[in-house]
Amino acid sequence: MQFHHYGYVSGDPRRQPAAGTGVDRPEQLPDEVDVLIVGTGPAGMIMAAQLAQFPGIRTRIIERRPGRLEIGHADGIQARSVETFQAFGFADRITAEAYRITEMAFWKPDPNRPEHIIRTARTPDDPEDISEFPHLIVNQARVLDYLAEAALNGPARIRPDFGVAFNGLTINDDDDYPVNVSLRMNADTDEERERTVRARYVVGCDGARSGVRSAIGCKLAGDQANHAWGVMDVLAKTDFPDIRTKCAIQSNAGGSILLIPREGGHLFRMYVDLGEVPADGSNDVRNTPIEQIIEKANDILTPYTLDVRNVAWHSVYEVGHRLTDRFDDVKDPSSERLPRVFITGDACHTHSAKAGQGMNVSMQDGFNLGWKLGYVLSGRSPATLLSTYSAERQVVAKNLIDFDKKWSTMMAKRPEEFEDPGELEAFYARTIEFPAGFMTEYAPSMIINDAKHQTLATGFPVGKRFKSAMVSRVCDGNPLQLGHQARADGRWRLYVFADAALAGEDSATQRLAEWLERSSDSPLNVALPGGAWVDWFDIKVIYQQHHEDVSINQVPSVFKPEVGPFELVNLESVFGIAPDEDIFDARGINRDGAIVVVRPDQYVADVLALSDTHRLGELFKRLQA
Amino acid sequence: MQFHHYGYVSGDPRRQPAAGTGVDRPEQLPDEVDVLIVGTGPAGMIMAAQLAQFPGIRTRIIERRPGRLEIGHADGIQARSVETFQAFGFADRITAEAYRITEMAFWKPDPNRPEHIIRTARTPDDPEDISEFPHLIVNQARVLDYLAEAALNGPARIRPDFGVAFNGLTINDDDDYPVNVSLRMNADTDEERERTVRARYVVGCDGARSGVRSAIGCKLAGDQANHAWGVMDVLAKTDFPDIRTKCAIQSNAGGSILLIPREGGHLFRMYVDLGEVPADGSNDVRNTPIEQIIEKANDILTPYTLDVRNVAWHSVYEVGHRLTDRFDDVKDPSSERLPRVFITGDACHTHSAKAGQGMNVSMQDGFNLGWKLGYVLSGRSPATLLSTYSAERQVVAKNLIDFDKKWSTMMAKRPEEFEDPGELEAFYARTIEFPAGFMTEYAPSMIINDAKHQTLATGFPVGKRFKSAMVSRVCDGNPLQLGHQARADGRWRLYVFADAALAGEDSATQRLAEWLERSSDSPLNVALPGGAWVDWFDIKVIYQQHHEDVSINQVPSVFKPEVGPFELVNLESVFGIAPDEDIFDARGINRDGAIVVVRPDQYVADVLALSDTHRLGELFKRLQA
Repeated sequence: MQFHHYGYVSGDPRRQPAAGTGVDRPEQLPDEVDVLIVGTGPAGMIMAAQLAQFPGIRTRIIERRPGRLEIGHADGIQARSVETFQAFGFADRITAEAYRITEMAFWKPDPNRPEHIIRTARTPDDPEDISEFPHLIVNQARVLDYLAEAALNGPARIRPDFGVAFNGLTINDDDDYPVNVSLRMNADTDEERERTVRARYVVGCDGARSGVRSAIGCKLAGDQANHAWGVMDVLAKTDFPDIRTKCAIQSNAGGSILLIPREGGHLFRMYVDLGEVPADGSNDVRNTPIEQIIEKANDILTPYTLDVRNVAWHSVYEVGHRLTDRFDDVKDPSSERLPRVFITGDACHTHSAKAGQGMNVSMQDGFNLGWKLGYVLSGRSPATLLSTYSAERQVVAKNLIDFDKKWSTMMAKRPEEFEDPGELEAFYARTIEFPAGFMTEYAPSMIINDAKHQTLATGFPVGKRFKSAMVSRVCDGNPLQLGHQARADGRWRLYVFADAALAGEDSATQRLAEWLERSSDSPLNVALPGGAWVDWFDIKVIYQQHHEDVSINQVPSVFKPEVGPFELVNLESVFGIAPDEDIFDARGINRDGAIVVVRPDQYVADVLALSDTHRLGELFKRLQA
Repeated sequence: MQFHHYGYVSGDPRRQPAAGTGVDRPEQLPDEVDVLIVGTGPAGMIMAAQLAQFPGIRTRIIERRPGRLEIGHADGIQARSVETFQAFGFADRITAEAYRITEMAFWKPDPNRPEHIIRTARTPDDPEDISEFPHLIVNQARVLDYLAEAALNGPARIRPDFGVAFNGLTINDDDDYPVNVSLRMNADTDEERERTVRARYVVGCDGARSGVRSAIGCKLAGDQANHAWGVMDVLAKTDFPDIRTKCAIQSNAGGSILLIPREGGHLFRMYVDLGEVPADGSNDVRNTPIEQIIEKANDILTPYTLDVRNVAWHSVYEVGHRLTDRFDDVKDPSSERLPRVFITGDACHTHSAKAGQGMNVSMQDGFNLGWKLGYVLSGRSPATLLSTYSAERQVVAKNLIDFDKKWSTMMAKRPEEFEDPGELEAFYARTIEFPAGFMTEYAPSMIINDAKHQTLATGFPVGKRFKSAMVSRVCDGNPLQLGHQARADGRWRLYVFADAALAGEDSATQRLAEWLERSSDSPLNVALPGGAWVDWFDIKVIYQQHHEDVSINQVPSVFKPEVGPFELVNLESVFGIAPDEDIFDARGINRDGAIVVVRPDQYVADVLALSDTHRLGELFKRLQA
């Protein structure tokens, strides 16, 4: 965490100095805004947290509810989300209060006594050490609290406008503020009144029944639901020994349970199989009372019993898998029209809750779109950048739905329907990287290059998120996770993995540094000449030597930029290899060096040679308005 | 972190439900209080945070300043303090914003060019892995912020009374509220007025010029200061390559520098040797202006230069080593009179700042006294418990002063005065456990038993703080640091390291569990029969098997106590050994098992055999009022 460089900071350094629109942000929703986010769910709030780093932009986020969410329904936090939270500054805190999944247990009918269940397997949750981040379970309301804090602590000081409901919108592409949004102010009070706000861009983060989706003529398409599940968050006494372990329980008593322990040591969630919904359309299953869900759970758990003492929340739902074919208002992708309205999260994709994916994928939707809006509205990038949002995220949602269909179908199967009795746990173990959130791989586009030079750094696949590894900081000898030094500050990152030469020796690294600093083709000079590039770029250099063998005074100045009014030198971007792990080996980096270009949302945009300045320059020229 | 067991918690679980005096705590300082803490420095605030866990007690803490400390002078946080912060719930957060010391560099005159300095050694800060916690540098003001948050989040909701100055006190032992304290309300305003508050106990945490110390007739005794140091917190440009590393720099240019990098990546502190203070008592040295300190620093750093751009704080001080012979108001230790007034921290001990000890030792003073006041005022323990405070902490302060004398004398020596040129770094490496805070070892007393059975668990020395190791929690398979599960909640802890038997088998562990639960001699029943003992005791059992081989249903019920209104079972106190490290080996625990008894301030009170229930009972009978 860097601070004090504008002078001494006495209070919480996480509270960045207010700037731009954050300095005297109006209490009331103004008539004209740059970005209007509809809905304060995970996708909306992460976008607010991201846009809080762009104080030149007027971002407002509206919410129909009068205040903070009290009890959310999502609770699964995949490792990729914790990695994202790390960049927003609250991974440690949310981890400390969450339930951590380290293994999953599988229960099946006892072959010797089929009316009883027995434990047949335990599987580690992350057997391959896919991520250094944990897999957590914590109420969505807390995720939103932390994102709200990040949004408020950013320079733009973004705070939701509560009690404001979305009514509808019209678009006039010729207008400076092309989106006319009709709102209901003081929604849910007696003083409700209509109002219009004009926006440059609107983002619908308004859930499965999204009004924004309807307004842009998008439809969810997919299979109809027909299998019902009871879900309950409860406090109970039980002799079921794995009550604090994530379990898939299959019984002969008619159905299965997915058990998810929750934060705090006592609460847990159960998804209880209620069977097929009759085709006659009757609502009997949908109206299953909590008593009956508990009774069904007891049947499935036999010989164990569950004495529910307190019900925090419960519901009955049917699994449906539905998806929109586009995530923005451009109906004809072959037209040259650029998007003005976007939808995210549940507004675009709905599926079962049991793979614990919904909140996570929604947040990545928001993280993907947030910086792009920031770049376009700051005048840094052309508006064509915004077309990559729908292109990138629609594919991800499609993959999610395919995965969830398999998983939820398996969870609904009866034990005797499995050909191989170990099929469920084998599927879980085989596919773990997907639900952990690390299988997203963006296709080539204006911001993802082809993987032509992938061999230079095989551990940083182009299109996938930058996977951290240990390094050692030269200036203070601190061993650190390289990836964790990246904040969600909207900056592009260049990781320069040096060739074998020492700092200061004539070398490819040295020549690259000079080009970066001096060439008029360098993205640093194209972006903001005169050193102000540090607002847009974060450049880190990693030498092949241990930190004590890198002479900081010999390191090229582009890796030690001056910052702030006192022109202090930032020494914290220069690294050597860690004592116990050589990142060049761990990530398959060529000893002649490589540049790894990483987007503000942490995805690798390119891998290229130190000498390939032309390709590097071209990538950023495309990004330049 | 355990919560939800009283029903669903929507907000931050760190904010415990208000109870007792915290429910409608008066805004104004009342006329009568149980504990009056004078001063909101580190010792006072940690005591407030601890007493916030005793909501039956009226604790108030007064501060002369009108509000929060803006810029503190202490900055060194030893690993023992971070361990303590972990128990108060903010170790991760303060670590994230602090500078972390991982190594120290030593600079000396270049033998080939003695007017220049060169680096002669680098020493790892914790070469022996003494602690899993880091050694940090962060402004005292932030430490106080976090402790204030902990005090406010505790059930007693303690918040400082600002603008209240201590005037004096008188003691009348026969009174219910024996300490009459004279105060100045609205100190430093025009509306200053006198007021009297009556207290059962008063704690002076009011610093080196303590008014409470004077009021109880204590005096600081020790050597006079005669060596002056300039200290400055600055932002600068420099070519000195180790500017972000802790350094001891000895020059021929007349003196030495101790360089301490500070949080935020740019700020650093320098202690600059200003030489002897003339015996004529002139104030020239004491009035050294900042420009001259900077000039001196430049002389010492030759051939490097230091261009100071911003001064956050600076001062000149002389090293004195002074100590009071008692930390309470009992002048004659052989009398039966029990203490009513205590002093802590700088009020008792002053020394150089350069070993980074002051704030740390002060906090341990407060942590030591806090729970004792809690127990006596709750009616749980006899008032004789309070005599152990002065007895335990005066020795620690004496050791600190002896250590600091050696270190600061060495730091003031000229290079040619060392017999062995590596003497300074050798001393630093040899003594590292002391400044890290882990050499405190309390002598036998009513709350520390003799170490007769130490061989049963050699890694938990009686009288020293409980050193954590990895275990695996049975109910969820989470690998965890056993010691980090202990919150600063005022409870005593029994760590039951089981014998080799499996849970449920007839064994010494099983018999101990039955005795604990059923015997009228068991401390649990002596304390609060009927299960309410969980308010006073935290019992954890560690089996010798891996977690998957411990059958949770077979574990005796005393290790799975019922909690809260729903009588939920707490399963989180049952552990197996970790996959990679067997705590029985790591801490030298006998395979026949052992009980390790740990005080609320984390010090080991006894190690004893599983069968030694008599000794266990006797220890707690002494603690019982």
